[in-house]
Amino acid sequence: MNFKDEMAKRTMQIEEIILRFLPEEKGYQKTVIEAMNYSILAGGKRLRPMLLQETYKMFHGEEGLEEPFMAALEMIHTYSLVHDDLPCMDDDEYRRGRKTTHAVYGEGMAVLAGDALLNFAFETAVTAFSRTENAQGMERVYRALSILAGKAGIFGMIGGQTADIEAENIGSEVTQDQLLFIYGYKTAALIQSAMMIGATLAGASDEELSKIETCAYSVGIAFQIQDDILDITGSLEVLGKQTGSDEKNHKSTYVALNGMERAKAEVERLSEEAAGILSSFDNRNEFLEALIKQLITREK
Amino acid sequence: MNFKDEMAKRTMQIEEIILRFLPEEKGYQKTVIEAMNYSILAGGKRLRPMLLQETYKMFHGEEGLEEPFMAALEMIHTYSLVHDDLPCMDDDEYRRGRKTTHAVYGEGMAVLAGDALLNFAFETAVTAFSRTENAQGMERVYRALSILAGKAGIFGMIGGQTADIEAENIGSEVTQDQLLFIYGYKTAALIQSAMMIGATLAGASDEELSKIETCAYSVGIAFQIQDDILDITGSLEVLGKQTGSDEKNHKSTYVALNGMERAKAEVERLSEEAAGILSSFDNRNEFLEALIKQLITREK
Repeated sequence: MNFKDEMAKRTMQIEEIILRFLPEEKGYQKTVIEAMNYSILAGGKRLRPMLLQETYKMFHGEEGLEEPFMAALEMIHTYSLVHDDLPCMDDDEYRRGRKTTHAVYGEGMAVLAGDALLNFAFETAVTAFSRTENAQGMERVYRALSILAGKAGIFGMIGGQTADIEAENIGSEVTQDQLLFIYGYKTAALIQSAMMIGATLAGASDEELSKIETCAYSVGIAFQIQDDILDITGSLEVLGKQTGSDEKNHKSTYVALNGMERAKAEVERLSEEAAGILSSFDNRNEFLEALIKQLITREK
Repeated sequence: MNFKDEMAKRTMQIEEIILRFLPEEKGYQKTVIEAMNYSILAGGKRLRPMLLQETYKMFHGEEGLEEPFMAALEMIHTYSLVHDDLPCMDDDEYRRGRKTTHAVYGEGMAVLAGDALLNFAFETAVTAFSRTENAQGMERVYRALSILAGKAGIFGMIGGQTADIEAENIGSEVTQDQLLFIYGYKTAALIQSAMMIGATLAGASDEELSKIETCAYSVGIAFQIQDDILDITGSLEVLGKQTGSDEKNHKSTYVALNGMERAKAEVERLSEEAAGILSSFDNRNEFLEALIKQLITREK
């Protein structure tokens, strides 16, 4: 089977896992549950749960502890999009051609649905405890919960979102240090969360976990710089002029700060760094390595 | 020491515990941390952490597992107020004479600060694992985490908030069943969370936990009905006419549905039920019993 087909197959399998953890739409609180499910069932490649599961496999995890965390991580990713799209944040009425949550359910309900998804992520992840009966398994679930919460919060994704809002206020004055903080927290943190949770649940050592954290950081930063690059080259192809949405929105990007040449070189460097770390392990996962390569070097 | 002084002393002690768990205001994400701390340091009697701690003491908890959960529960209560006050929700610019979070930091930052508080609540509660070294302690922390997440979510507080928004749309058509759903979830759920977490962390049996859940439900419902009563009698005293803010806002309340007489009788009945449950235990906590009585029968 080629990579594209493998990827499609796994996305479908993950879709089924996520579905199993979603709440039933009933009761006086039915509307918020509908809004939650509408938000999370918007499609997408389910990259974060996929990275989590593949890293779990790479470290020979077999207790089935990863499934609640896969669903939980996707809920956290989804809630961040629901709140990001709000009129008081990015004010987006469409995401990937589909109406955003507040456009369908109203602003108040979208705030609640986002809150509900974040809360339900922890409700879901905590159920992993019931899948293990020994102290070692409980310890791993506890560590995974710490990572899940930590990488999503003020020293993770929310920290990055805050810095991003602040950066928009100062425009071109954003420094390289601040930009890498935003990329590292807003984008890389959930990639780290995915891979570190997979490794932790499978029993990776502290040293292995630290290598995975570094690898995932490189993947996340490269992914984001590639996004900046595609924003420009993509518009060049489609519109015939080299002005992407970032430039129009006066958004500071890695390309704007460092130029296209250096941006491409940095993606290359980070990609090699990530691949080097993964190949240094005795345990290998070919699909994970291909997935990461594809993520970084994607053309759209 | 009289009850009022005891209460003030404990509120101060809890204030110190909460302070110890708050994040430091620094880094590129400083603003959201400031907004979090501004929101949580708005004062108040810290009833939920107090109920948690007193129930923990009642069941002879002594490992110190309760402190992270006390702070976490207050963070959850606080985030719900921050999001409730947003323009797209209740649109309140002041709360207890102090500017609300979005009035000071802007709407986008208030959304993020609420998210950050909810997320940080779980980050904080999870640290309780590091306070125990045996499987029994870990099991208790895991169960407490389940309660914390469950009672705050769609089958708890958020479920009640959703039903409340829906009820506002249909006004006087709200049924008694729906009203009790709202009171039970929006108000009683976090009271249940507090007392059940305290009992769980101290090692209460399933049977004891179930009694505590029922007791806390009665306390929560009585507390809310008393709120409805005070909304009317309070305005009678101050304004000289019997029209409270609920009536002006066309909000369905227990008093509106059942009349003042039956509302008062129901508070009395629930109060006795709660007291009866607490006095049925061999282990008693006089301060907790007095606190609950005061909560229910308060005059303002």
